[in-house]
Amino acid sequence: MNRAQVVPEILGEYGAICRRAVRRYLSIRGDRGAEYLGDALRDYPERGGRSLRSSLCIAVARAFGASIDDALDSAVALEMMHNSFLIHDDVEDDSEVRRGRPTLHVLHGVPIAINVGDALTVLSLRPFLRNRSTLGARLSLRILEEAEQMARETVEGQAIELGWRRANTIDLGDDDYLRMVLKKTCWYTTIFPTRVGALIGSRDGVDLEPFLRFGFFVGAAFQIQDDLLNLIGDRAQYGKEIGGDLWEGKRTLMIIHLLNQANDDEVTRLSLFLATPRADKRSSDATWVRDLMDSYGSVAYCQQVAHGLAGAATLEFERGFAGLPESRDLSFVRELPAWVISRA
Amino acid sequence: MNRAQVVPEILGEYGAICRRAVRRYLSIRGDRGAEYLGDALRDYPERGGRSLRSSLCIAVARAFGASIDDALDSAVALEMMHNSFLIHDDVEDDSEVRRGRPTLHVLHGVPIAINVGDALTVLSLRPFLRNRSTLGARLSLRILEEAEQMARETVEGQAIELGWRRANTIDLGDDDYLRMVLKKTCWYTTIFPTRVGALIGSRDGVDLEPFLRFGFFVGAAFQIQDDLLNLIGDRAQYGKEIGGDLWEGKRTLMIIHLLNQANDDEVTRLSLFLATPRADKRSSDATWVRDLMDSYGSVAYCQQVAHGLAGAATLEFERGFAGLPESRDLSFVRELPAWVISRA
Repeated sequence: MNRAQVVPEILGEYGAICRRAVRRYLSIRGDRGAEYLGDALRDYPERGGRSLRSSLCIAVARAFGASIDDALDSAVALEMMHNSFLIHDDVEDDSEVRRGRPTLHVLHGVPIAINVGDALTVLSLRPFLRNRSTLGARLSLRILEEAEQMARETVEGQAIELGWRRANTIDLGDDDYLRMVLKKTCWYTTIFPTRVGALIGSRDGVDLEPFLRFGFFVGAAFQIQDDLLNLIGDRAQYGKEIGGDLWEGKRTLMIIHLLNQANDDEVTRLSLFLATPRADKRSSDATWVRDLMDSYGSVAYCQQVAHGLAGAATLEFERGFAGLPESRDLSFVRELPAWVISRA
Repeated sequence: MNRAQVVPEILGEYGAICRRAVRRYLSIRGDRGAEYLGDALRDYPERGGRSLRSSLCIAVARAFGASIDDALDSAVALEMMHNSFLIHDDVEDDSEVRRGRPTLHVLHGVPIAINVGDALTVLSLRPFLRNRSTLGARLSLRILEEAEQMARETVEGQAIELGWRRANTIDLGDDDYLRMVLKKTCWYTTIFPTRVGALIGSRDGVDLEPFLRFGFFVGAAFQIQDDLLNLIGDRAQYGKEIGGDLWEGKRTLMIIHLLNQANDDEVTRLSLFLATPRADKRSSDATWVRDLMDSYGSVAYCQQVAHGLAGAATLEFERGFAGLPESRDLSFVRELPAWVISRA
């Protein structure tokens, strides 16, 4: 068997378990308020993503000796927060397509989309609080502290990215990008799931420091691959508009590479393109940017950076997970860095 | 001394303490992410509201024998959530003025305003978690459970109101309005502060049931008075646009009363007015609605309902707070219903 095969397999298994659990939480029959939230609340979770975050949390917990049930409430809470972030991100970026369908604000308008995102954040507190019955008061509060830090890092990362776009910042380097991605993507995608999985599996018995680096490296590789897929991926598989980041003026690693490689005239035109509101951007300009990236090797450069980060993650894996008995869950975590940069 | 004077006095005292504490939480020097959030995060809290919610929480806790410090973290967390709700509400309603200044999305754009609202919700978790050091793990988790329910009720109430506007629902009665307001306003404005104050003051030693009704009655009276002030208040004191609710098509109790009193032709025209987007509404139509309210006595009717609710709150006060020693804080709570309907 192909070693890397364990990643999609576990994502399929744990993802299905989490989706069922999320559905249970979001289908609690309330009164008329819940009815008004209803379908919009379940829409994004039901579209079915990869469940990377929740699966990683469960796999790490199991690798450390816990059961799926020990980690399920935390995984479900994370999945709800993830969907909340997606809804608000889509409004903030004015994205049109998510997981192959129109975004929530395109379907229901901005006000309802904002409120549904808020609702998913709020509802994620419920499974976090349910941890108390399985893990006890102390460990539950410990996990909530991690959740608070994670959510704070996420909104700070989002603030950086929105700030860059608002000010049309172009004086950026790889380090700026990686700091933004550490906050915006890595904390909730990989750092939090790994740390909380380890907390649950070890019953608060291991140093969490190595998981910060492991999560950062694998999460950053994941985000760069995501940026690449947005540019060169297959629309049907990717589920979002191809080239959407360009139209939204996002500071991807490719754009930052290009801004640092291009000549002055090109930078001026790039800056103007990035500052132009989406609706006023011209297709010919987007094509020009895309071609310029090819001529400066921006895509190839970012693929290399992603590979480097995945390699660093594999080294960190050996530190954080040393001494654990071999298991399918441990293999999943070991193979994750290679998978994130090979996924299409 | 005028008995009712205790309300503005305590609001002034506890409000100042809470604002200082909120500022401390929001000024924690972080790295570049926090810097990008920075001023926008502190903007609404610094504009200074009445601090009704946080003051009520502290006053009830003290009336039950706790110290200000015992309740301060919960009060601060609530104040942050309140400001988060305000920011998102203003985006959702496309309101232009808040506390006498342009709303946050008018100043910074919708994307940043959404994210700053998210940040305030997230940051409110921090003081809630800090409760652990003063109140212990069990009571802290109990308060978080109350916070989860409160936030859930709030987003459900918001969902009802947005749903009515989206569908241009006009077939509504007083009971629909009160159910919406119970969720949207009362839970976070009065029910949660009273229940959590009692939880803290009694160290989880009293039945919270009476506070649900007390909070509902006084909170509903508060909201109706707020609707009235939006229509007939003094702009400088009120801090929002006078008549803004009309332009936003909000289902206030006056509008619902009018819809139930008006003749068929008038209802048709009202329905059309409510359905018209804000930017397309005509000033002459708004004046017509306003005059129609006068001719059907909608304002006077709502003032009566608010008075009735305030009276009911005073009766419930006697149940929930019976047997407590007389104190300034207890007077504050007793006088609160009369104050909410007399404030300008």
